[in-house]
Amino acid sequence: MSGKNRPVLLLLAIAVFSLALFGNSAEDAKISDESQLCIDCHLQYTPGIVSDWKKSRHSRTTLNEALSKKEIERRVSISETGTLNGDIVVGCYECHSMNPDVHKDNFEHFGYAINAIVSPNDCRSCHPEEASQYSGSKKAHALDILRKNKTYDLLVNASLGIPNPHGDNHKYHKATENQKNETCFACHGTEVEVKGLKTIDTDLGEMEIPDLANYPNTGVGRINPDGSKGSCTSCHPRHSFSIEVARDPATCAQCHLEPDVPAYDVYIESKHGNIFKAKGKEWNFENVPWQAGEDFTAPTCATCHNSLVVDAEGNILAERTHDFGSRLWVRIFGLPYSHPQPKDGRTWLTKLSDGTQLPVSLDGSEFADSHLISPDEMNRRRDSFKKVCGACHGSGWADGHFTRLDSTLKDTDAMVKVSTEIMLEYWKKNPEEAANPFDGLEERWWTKQWLYYMSSIRYASAMSGPDYATFKDGWYESNINYLKIKKSLSD
Amino acid sequence: MSGKNRPVLLLLAIAVFSLALFGNSAEDAKISDESQLCIDCHLQYTPGIVSDWKKSRHSRTTLNEALSKKEIERRVSISETGTLNGDIVVGCYECHSMNPDVHKDNFEHFGYAINAIVSPNDCRSCHPEEASQYSGSKKAHALDILRKNKTYDLLVNASLGIPNPHGDNHKYHKATENQKNETCFACHGTEVEVKGLKTIDTDLGEMEIPDLANYPNTGVGRINPDGSKGSCTSCHPRHSFSIEVARDPATCAQCHLEPDVPAYDVYIESKHGNIFKAKGKEWNFENVPWQAGEDFTAPTCATCHNSLVVDAEGNILAERTHDFGSRLWVRIFGLPYSHPQPKDGRTWLTKLSDGTQLPVSLDGSEFADSHLISPDEMNRRRDSFKKVCGACHGSGWADGHFTRLDSTLKDTDAMVKVSTEIMLEYWKKNPEEAANPFDGLEERWWTKQWLYYMSSIRYASAMSGPDYATFKDGWYESNINYLKIKKSLSD
Amino acid sequence: MSGKNRPVLLLLAIAVFSLALFGNSAEDAKISDESQLCIDCHLQYTPGIVSDWKKSRHSRTTLNEALSKKEIERRVSISETGTLNGDIVVGCYECHSMNPDVHKDNFEHFGYAINAIVSPNDCRSCHPEEASQYSGSKKAHALDILRKNKTYDLLVNASLGIPNPHGDNHKYHKATENQKNETCFACHGTEVEVKGLKTIDTDLGEMEIPDLANYPNTGVGRINPDGSKGSCTSCHPRHSFSIEVARDPATCAQCHLEPDVPAYDVYIESKHGNIFKAKGKEWNFENVPWQAGEDFTAPTCATCHNSLVVDAEGNILAERTHDFGSRLWVRIFGLPYSHPQPKDGRTWLTKLSDGTQLPVSLDGSEFADSHLISPDEMNRRRDSFKKVCGACHGSGWADGHFTRLDSTLKDTDAMVKVSTEIMLEYWKKNPEEAANPFDGLEERWWTKQWLYYMSSIRYASAMSGPDYATFKDGWYESNINYLKIKKSLSD
Repeated sequence: MSGKNRPVLLLLAIAVFSLALFGNSAEDAKISDESQLCIDCHLQYTPGIVSDWKKSRHSRTTLNEALSKKEIERRVSISETGTLNGDIVVGCYECHSMNPDVHKDNFEHFGYAINAIVSPNDCRSCHPEEASQYSGSKKAHALDILRKNKTYDLLVNASLGIPNPHGDNHKYHKATENQKNETCFACHGTEVEVKGLKTIDTDLGEMEIPDLANYPNTGVGRINPDGSKGSCTSCHPRHSFSIEVARDPATCAQCHLEPDVPAYDVYIESKHGNIFKAKGKEWNFENVPWQAGEDFTAPTCATCHNSLVVDAEGNILAERTHDFGSRLWVRIFGLPYSHPQPKDGRTWLTKLSDGTQLPVSLDGSEFADSHLISPDEMNRRRDSFKKVCGACHGSGWADGHFTRLDSTLKDTDAMVKVSTEIMLEYWKKNPEEAANPFDGLEERWWTKQWLYYMSSIRYASAMSGPDYATFKDGWYESNINYLKIKKSLSD
Repeated sequence: MSGKNRPVLLLLAIAVFSLALFGNSAEDAKISDESQLCIDCHLQYTPGIVSDWKKSRHSRTTLNEALSKKEIERRVSISETGTLNGDIVVGCYECHSMNPDVHKDNFEHFGYAINAIVSPNDCRSCHPEEASQYSGSKKAHALDILRKNKTYDLLVNASLGIPNPHGDNHKYHKATENQKNETCFACHGTEVEVKGLKTIDTDLGEMEIPDLANYPNTGVGRINPDGSKGSCTSCHPRHSFSIEVARDPATCAQCHLEPDVPAYDVYIESKHGNIFKAKGKEWNFENVPWQAGEDFTAPTCATCHNSLVVDAEGNILAERTHDFGSRLWVRIFGLPYSHPQPKDGRTWLTKLSDGTQLPVSLDGSEFADSHLISPDEMNRRRDSFKKVCGACHGSGWADGHFTRLDSTLKDTDAMVKVSTEIMLEYWKKNPEEAANPFDGLEERWWTKQWLYYMSSIRYASAMSGPDYATFKDGWYESNINYLKIKKSLSD
Repeated sequence: MSGKNRPVLLLLAIAVFSLALFGNSAEDAKISDESQLCIDCHLQYTPGIVSDWKKSRHSRTTLNEALSKKEIERRVSISETGTLNGDIVVGCYECHSMNPDVHKDNFEHFGYAINAIVSPNDCRSCHPEEASQYSGSKKAHALDILRKNKTYDLLVNASLGIPNPHGDNHKYHKATENQKNETCFACHGTEVEVKGLKTIDTDLGEMEIPDLANYPNTGVGRINPDGSKGSCTSCHPRHSFSIEVARDPATCAQCHLEPDVPAYDVYIESKHGNIFKAKGKEWNFENVPWQAGEDFTAPTCATCHNSLVVDAEGNILAERTHDFGSRLWVRIFGLPYSHPQPKDGRTWLTKLSDGTQLPVSLDGSEFADSHLISPDEMNRRRDSFKKVCGACHGSGWADGHFTRLDSTLKDTDAMVKVSTEIMLEYWKKNPEEAANPFDGLEERWWTKQWLYYMSSIRYASAMSGPDYATFKDGWYESNINYLKIKKSLSD
């Protein structure tokens, strides 16, 4: 026997065998028949994800149970089941069969219509607030932030391109799709495309599955085959969908690390990180809401940036948000000058008067005000932010801390300005080099001045990791870098 | 109602409410009335530190209970209570009301005279030996080590200053106070100054609190408003005052990390660090005394440098010390050449015949013997140190290890010499550059030669992390750096 | 009393005392009399290793008990005890007295003939398969890989040598033995030599012990005094011989770390590493066989590279191997171009037609086919490898992943080629520089191009840590490096 019929017959055999062996226990009753069928077979073919799911909250909580909790303790943001079945736990089929009509990756799998990829739009069925918040964030737009901004496109290609000494007009080959997928887009997300179906050989015979381009990818701005943006698995990885993992700094560290975004590195050096490393193993990373002092004794990234945090009496210190920039007032990395946060995640809409898609002009004189938040909004966010600090610190401490950050932003912007002035003069004298400010040797050093060093110093200030402002990609290296650029351009 | 009376009335209401709700249980009885009043209110305003304290040994141990232990198991170093109340646990008020007359940061807070900052001199009440040992250490003097040494002052300013291309006489602006506080002084400590009182708005109405300059800071050499030096919270952070945290390498890592002091990085790469990472979660970080092999199976920083360590039969392998340099014989970082440890923490007293505040002259020919420990004292310390090694290693192992270190110190000093000879020749030809040996491009590269690379190689040898002697800031990079300096100066 | 007799008398006293105190309990009965004697004394002299051993499986399992397990659960690879005593646990004497006739480090110790060093050949008594697999691996030959390959010997000396500006014919002093032992050989292994016996002073009087050169060392290719190669303690450290430690990524991280071999760094940045950091503390690192999904929910280094891994039904996904390269098909670090794995660990036998001991010629045109595995063998290994991926990932995921790796290997090899072409032209014009391609400034930068940057990019691809292909020693730095070399050689 071979070909198309074998898989179905084998699947049937496995299902019957499983039924005979395990019966239909009270606990199993909560799993939908469809999901049970998935499990019966995948326990053999991808056992790791079945085990992972069995350890998850999804596997042991029905929607009705989730909704029966007090509102502040809920992990779902719907208030009633609607068309969903509230009596079953959230299994394979429940998620992988959502919205099949918009899923270009939907395929026939042993008689069922299955989506290869579960998207934020599918998770939205139970978590609509989180999906909505996320959809407007810089994270959701992370791929377009690179693709739709001409400045970033130049930087991406100059960063990744392989030198082309034999070409007349090119200093380097343009970055390939593979290079982008392995680097920038690994964090920013790829556009996953369905090229059609492909046939694979399995122990159950031949099988047709979607042929996906730009995949695998778990970037935060992934564009999914249903058109939605994002990848919940970036932070709630794989089939445990764990809030514990999402709250662990190691999750953020996958993308937010030195030299360009040293958030994790600075955190780990800070007293907060120190306490996390020494005592975090005893903390409760699971409770909702998350109680400061009781569940944890120092913040992790999630505490300050997105979790629902309460004090000992249950008062809310910070509401949960999945728009990770929405608590922040200044933006301190990825661009030469610090600047107010953008009004929404579509930063490519931030334009200067000459059309350049930058929030601040290279000489530091012009701000793209129309797409940046107002000073009032900045103050409002900063005041809200301090409530989390207030769980453990008096107001004098928090005020002193943020006053320093203001001062450091001024200092780093001054360093950007003095470094950029050399380049502006160079570009004036060599207008042919100005078209791409990222591809020459000195231009690349200049890029490091803000992309690495000023970013480090600002993070070091924002989260108290002093070495990142000093010898580790801080003032010391930036001064050396400045002198290198100056010497090289004057040679 | 507004103004000054509201806070007092509100506080009273909270206190009465708390009393009605919780009564005065047997356990509460051990908390002083004053501390209980602090807790009643701060449970609402800074709940994190109340929770933190409740998890601490301070919150559950009276002084009499602490003194009732066998001497070797004690965590206090007084032998009788004296004027202290031995029947209460160590609460908020006990520490924040100490020695009010010398505390410039003392302020009236709801009818009580409170110190904003608790200093080593306050901790001295129960921990006099630790305070005394610490007060003579390099850590206690860490701020003055930078401020009172002209050489270090030049380095600090050259490291942090922002280029000043438009000035006639300056290559860079001098480092601002904010820059120093965010970098060098974050670890070395700031001088906390009381500028007076400031009025803040709180939920309880307006409140006056001390207005502190150069704060927050938790640097090891912080100069406190009572004139004392140090900050116990550097290593026993916040309100849990935890010995577990202090014994965790992550605590030391806040300051002792690459590229200039890669102690933590080398440790983590070493077999000791490897075992800590794999098995440390099962160790007992709390026991006093700390039993080698039983409580831990590989040393952390504290084991070798300051903890009270015993063997299986209770014999003391190392006495507890809070003068962290006192077990060491050579000094291997922060200066070009390795040299004997200074006699005490005031390294600015180490002077060469021409008055330069260095232990070894730049050409390597002169030692500032008078303020450095003798060869005999070096040998004595090394022999003592080996007793800790002896908990797990035979004498052949330890001897082999330290013989290598001697050889590596010679090699690194030779590399400093050959690198510095180029600079000495350069300074001879360009005497105007000799005044500040840290501000030119090649001078900065030369600084990295010893501040980063020789430091890395020496730490790699001292604690067995070979990559830090090879490719990671080791011999490889230092050879490249040497050739860069040579080429640049001969251009 | 002094001299030779005292130790024996003291030992006797201790033994008698111990016997009186502890008697001979049922549990003690399993420890051989010889090992009990070791313990009685060493509990006082190196208590840490006694405690360590007491926590080990060796201390609580007799060989008969080990053999009574089902074959797949066994940690020994013999099938019967043979001449070994199956009724005692594996104590000090059992290991340190093995094969005394071939041990040049055997010495008389209180009446017993003891080997100072236990070697893989001794462990072979119970673990013959592991010892045999290991003995053919690159790890076992790691020292000779450096010593017997002229190219590597040049690199080692250029990397470590101290500049010698005053010599006529030398750019630098050759690396000393101590330098090599502290750097390359710390991981690769030293050749431990027995110089004779030396007398040491102990609390028990004078004692003679072997005088070992190039020791301590725990490198993977250590050449032992019995002629065997390797050091099991590299990964199963000290006297707990722990499989948990060996399976922890921190163990591999001792040698496989950035900048030259950033395997650990990339792993930690990857989603696998992220999950390990967040959840690993709850995993079972001890089970044999190791069940994917149940014992762990993301792989560690050992999972993919050497452990015996099974699925939920006990089917073997990967057989245990101690030849750590045997699951791999390409070699991605340590040499300019990626290339097929060598046929065995003796890479110095890989020779080009002109005798150069390289797998690929510098211009990328010639492969040393005879000592590299065939394309068929490469495919076979890759297919096997994917079975481990298949524990959690569908075939589309794994195929997509490895297709990318292929593309990245081509890209990185292209970058090596374009960078090396500049050097080949330079060497053509300056034949006196071609003799040693590692000692000039630009030559060292070129070395970094492949030794650091291409290695980073390849690891980043192989294990999904994108920053190591981008800004952290990735494409960005390699492009800067290329331009630096080009500019410097054209100056």
